Amino acid sequence: MKKTTFALVSSCTALALSLLAGGAQAQSTFAKPEDAVKYRQAAFTLVGSHFGRLAPVVRGQAPFDAAAVQRETALLQQLAALPWDGFAPGTEGGKASPDIWKEQEKFKQLQDRMRGEVDKLAEASKSGELEKVRAAFGGVGASCKACHDAYRQR
Amino acid sequence: MKKTTFALVSSCTALALSLLAGGAQAQSTFAKPEDAVKYRQAAFTLVGSHFGRLAPVVRGQAPFDAAAVQRETALLQQLAALPWDGFAPGTEGGKASPDIWKEQEKFKQLQDRMRGEVDKLAEASKSGELEKVRAAFGGVGASCKACHDAYRQR
Repeated sequence: MKKTTFALVSSCTALALSLLAGGAQAQSTFAKPEDAVKYRQAAFTLVGSHFGRLAPVVRGQAPFDAAAVQRETALLQQLAALPWDGFAPGTEGGKASPDIWKEQEKFKQLQDRMRGEVDKLAEASKSGELEKVRAAFGGVGASCKACHDAYRQR
Repeated sequence: MKKTTFALVSSCTALALSLLAGGAQAQSTFAKPEDAVKYRQAAFTLVGSHFGRLAPVVRGQAPFDAAAVQRETALLQQLAALPWDGFAPGTEGGKASPDIWKEQEKFKQLQDRMRGEVDKLAEASKSGELEKVRAAFGGVGASCKACHDAYRQR
């Protein structure tokens, strides 16, 4: 009797889990896990490239064109929203630490921190003051690093 | 004398060319050609992913959420502007046909066509009418294909 009950509970649990997995899969934007990996890597490549373009400006190695910086940071806000969909359930892989899928809350906090810092950078760029842009640029960089240190594998 | 003149002209031409190349390099967004290749591939990955998300909707396989489609097509407009910087002089490679660098005018026309079709799609999505979105979606797809047929290597 005990055995039968256990078997029944197990079957139900398996069924429930497969329904949940099916549901998650149906909702997912990506046909295959590797598509999600490719997508998030592409999104980070663009984030890194457009963030990096500001580096010579804040370092004083390139002229400060306030309007251009404002356009760049507005684009960066759009791009900073993108990678996270690519960390859907069951898409472990690439350089992403498997801990991401075990520590969803902490990972979400780090995403939110990064997006918040990018928002501050976009705000700072509207001031047209290089000093403010420089300070906010540092904040974004630190937020990238915090997440890389925690969740990016070498 | 003739020889000396020739040597002098050659040296000057070489110097002028190297200055020009140096200037072009200083203006380039990418430190290395492979960075440009990676950047444009990443941009196309995002364009393809976000365009592809509309496919089930226009095929009637997913519900038509007009507001969501409008957000998606507005993002697509931003993304459609990005890949082209990545085709800077001297960045041949990846799946890009070398003809791109020989046929800059035709390549630019195909870029403009694609961006124009994406603009039409974004406009159509503001109407909230699935039929209009479907027609414009087809226009974008055809513009992608035209450029891939001409310039994407297998």
